[in-house]
Parts: sequence; C-alpha cells; structure tokens
Amino acid sequence: MSLPPLPPSLREESVIGVFDSGIGGLTLLKPLAEAYPSENFIYIGDTARLPYGSKSAHTIRVYAEQILDHLASHPKMRAIVVACNSASTQVPEKSWKGIPVFNVIDPGVQLALKNSESQRIGLIATRATVQSEAYAKRLLQQAPKAQIFSAACPLLVPLAEEGWVDDPITNLVVYRYVQPLLQHQIDTLIMGCTHYPILESSIRRAVGPHVHLIHSGEAMVEALRPALQPSPASAPRGQIHVLATDFSEAIQVQTERLLQPLKPIFSAET
Amino acid sequence: MSLPPLPPSLREESVIGVFDSGIGGLTLLKPLAEAYPSENFIYIGDTARLPYGSKSAHTIRVYAEQILDHLASHPKMRAIVVACNSASTQVPEKSWKGIPVFNVIDPGVQLALKNSESQRIGLIATRATVQSEAYAKRLLQQAPKAQIFSAACPLLVPLAEEGWVDDPITNLVVYRYVQPLLQHQIDTLIMGCTHYPILESSIRRAVGPHVHLIHSGEAMVEALRPALQPSPASAPRGQIHVLATDFSEAIQVQTERLLQPLKPIFSAET
Repeated sequence: MSLPPLPPSLREESVIGVFDSGIGGLTLLKPLAEAYPSENFIYIGDTARLPYGSKSAHTIRVYAEQILDHLASHPKMRAIVVACNSASTQVPEKSWKGIPVFNVIDPGVQLALKNSESQRIGLIATRATVQSEAYAKRLLQQAPKAQIFSAACPLLVPLAEEGWVDDPITNLVVYRYVQPLLQHQIDTLIMGCTHYPILESSIRRAVGPHVHLIHSGEAMVEALRPALQPSPASAPRGQIHVLATDFSEAIQVQTERLLQPLKPIFSAET
Repeated sequence: MSLPPLPPSLREESVIGVFDSGIGGLTLLKPLAEAYPSENFIYIGDTARLPYGSKSAHTIRVYAEQILDHLASHPKMRAIVVACNSASTQVPEKSWKGIPVFNVIDPGVQLALKNSESQRIGLIATRATVQSEAYAKRLLQQAPKAQIFSAACPLLVPLAEEGWVDDPITNLVVYRYVQPLLQHQIDTLIMGCTHYPILESSIRRAVGPHVHLIHSGEAMVEALRPALQPSPASAPRGQIHVLATDFSEAIQVQTERLLQPLKPIFSAET
C-alpha cells in the first residue's frame, strides 16, 4: 500500500492536512476552506481501503497511523484534521510528531452539548464509531447527566455514495434507523459520519423541525479557530489539493460536486 | 498488509483455496463443500480491504495477485477458486504458478446460456463488475446473438451485510435496480456478486416466477467437476478453514450462519 505523494507545488508552503477513508470528509473540508480561505489544504481520501466503519479498531488504527505519518512528513504541516469519525475513535492524540491533531469527535461533542437543552442526545454513525463508544464517553465526561442514544447506520454511506438524495427509499432507511432514537425524546442528533450531511434532507425529514442536527464541519471550524491566525484580507486564496489512494474519474466528479464552488486540484493530474 | 498464515494442520494435505473480498464468497464455498465433502478448503476473506466492487481495476488486480500468491505457496494446493466477481474480472488466468484457477464468471456464463431460451440475459453486479464488461464480453463470445442488460447495484452488498433479508426496504431497492432489466424482457438473471444469493427471496419477488436466477455456487460446482477426482464414499470429511485479513467476532458469527450446518474452523483461534 503506497500513499500518494504530497503535491510538490506546496512543498514550501504551510498547509493543513485533512484525511478520511473516502470522499465523505469533503463535507468537512468545504466549510474549513470557506472559513479559512487563505490556507492551503491537502486532503487524502483512503479510497483503496474504504470503508473504515466496518473494520476492526486495530486495522483502523494501523491505516490512520500510516496517513498521519505521511502528512506529518510535510515540513510545514500546521495541523492535521482527522475527518473520519471511525478513524477519530482510534486517534486520541492531540499532536502527532509535534503537529496539532484535531479529531472530529471532540468538536461535535462540544457543539451538541451547547445546543442540547434536555441533555438527551442522539448519535447516528457507522458501526465502528458506535461500538467504540467514543462519543458517549466524551459526552459523559463533560456532562455526566447527559443521556446518549446511538444507532449504527451501515446503509447511509452507500446511499450517499449512490446519490439517492431526497429519495423515498433513503427516507425510509433513515426513518428506520432514527425512529428508536426519537422515542427516547432526543433534542439533538449528532451526524457522526462525514457522509451524513449529504443526506441531511432525509435526516431532517425523519427527526422533524425541532431536533438540533450537529454537523461536524461547523463544529470543526470553531475547533480550529485558536490554532489558525487570521490572515490579512489581502492574502491570496490557498490551494485545495485532493489526493486519493485509489483515484478514479468517479471520485474526481464526486469531489467537484461536493466542493463546488471551490475548485480542487487533483494531484493525480499534476 | 499481511495475509493470515495458512493453517498448519493442513500443511501436508491437499486443499482447495477459495477467496473473496469478504464473506460473500461463503455462498459459493458452501455448495462446493457440500458437493465435494472429502476435500479440504481454505477460504480467505479480505475483510481488511473490502469491498472490492467500488475500487479500480488496478487496485483489485494488486489485491488478487497477493492472495493468489499466498494460496499458491501451499505445497498441495489443487485448485484456487476466485469467489469474488470483482476480482474475477481482473484474473483471466486459468492457472497461477501451475495451479488451476477458476474464476466465478465463466461458469455463470455457461449456466446462463444453458438456461436462457430467448438469449436475453440480465446481470446484476457491483459497479466494478458491470464496468469491466467481463460478463457481457464472455456471453457474446459464446453466443454472439445474445443480448445482455446490466445493472450495477451498490446497495445490495450492504443490505445483505445488514441482514435486511425478506425486508420491505430491500424489496424496494431490488425492484428499483431490476425493473429496467425486466423491461428488456430478460428470461435469465445472473446474480453476479456472491452476496446476492443472501437476498434471493427479494430478487425472486422482483423478477417473478418465470425468470431463471443464476447462482454462482451451482455453476462453480459443475465447473470444478473435471478437476476433482471423485473420492471414495469412505473418505473422511475434509476440513473447512475460514481466514480473514481483518477477523472479528461479527465475521465469525456471520460465517457460521452462512455455512450451517457445515462447521468451519477459524484459524484466528488455532
């Protein structure tokens, strides 16, 4: 397994690394790139080995370490964002080889606690993320009286990748997964997988108008604020490079669609 | 990526190797082990890297070569069965290091042509299998007047793995995939992914009673017959070893369910 080389054009530039098992993390990259427009971003999607969400904790850790090492080999890496929830459950470190690391779970927990009045919080995520209990443990550390209700939703990633958005079948599947959580009267639902915002319309339909939906991208924008200096308004726009361990035309098309109007650079082409 | 060691207890025994990207190939291993009860089988599920069906041809070829080499390292390997359709599209070889290799496509093509009267044949498979056109090319080589109608069905593997069998949502998804093929008046439908027999009741419901369903396992039993000598009735029952690149309790449970009443041996335990 060889990881794609980091883009030569950014060798001398400071960059922020973002990685995910596939393209789902682009839903997190987009709000980051919009909030911090002068930063350069390198995104790695581990499409050759996706999905992580059905794999064992050990295997996910091995894969995550390889990508962390690879991103950390860049001489001016400012921060690494673990955009994959399943990988985040296996990366508790706050830094890697001296570079700040941000997992996607802590910011989601913060934002959920800030939004929830009843402290009855739902989580939808992959099987690996639910089984790790990473969200539940961190929520309870910070709010010991909170109650967490979780549902593993293995079909949502393939539905998002199939593009069945605003679709009656997707509505049915989401409803089946979410209904048991609603019976526990949650007032906040964490979308604990970066693919899920693609299906937000079905999720909103299932939960109704009064449940707060927690989007990892919004949470991560806040989490990165202390680490990133504000750039002068005159600063040029940064580059967004998207790499994949198994690059294909389909991935390029989906990436362009998920990031628009931002313009990614595909290093497979350069 | 290290492949699991072959079981020491079979080092001196002749064996048949079977591999798939995950556990789907067990639907093929089971009829083989039932048809050839005195043979020893080693099954490898590449669960650390599944699914293959959404990956590029190049990546699938690399993974398949690694597993072929690994199985071929056994001194008494009699035959290797590529139980994964996506992998079969990238393994045209009839032998590997002197060992006969059987891909799952040729037997399915034979059985489809034998069953179809109208020569209007449908195929449901993963995106990789459909895009490879492996079934269409081989069908047309052997029956130039045949017409092939294909549908990529990326949601069926996750539905089978989720266990939503005999389920109204699965019925709806299958119907959506299969309906365009039925409009072409197919009389035979190839289940071109080893997971699909798990959903056979939904597929049968969608196609109605008059379409022949082609099951790779039945086709492979016939394909192996010339290569395997009949064993004496008194021969002891062979062993069935199931290995996985990412072994977990969930895989063990699913394996036992899919193979019952056969009793697999899990080398992770030995």
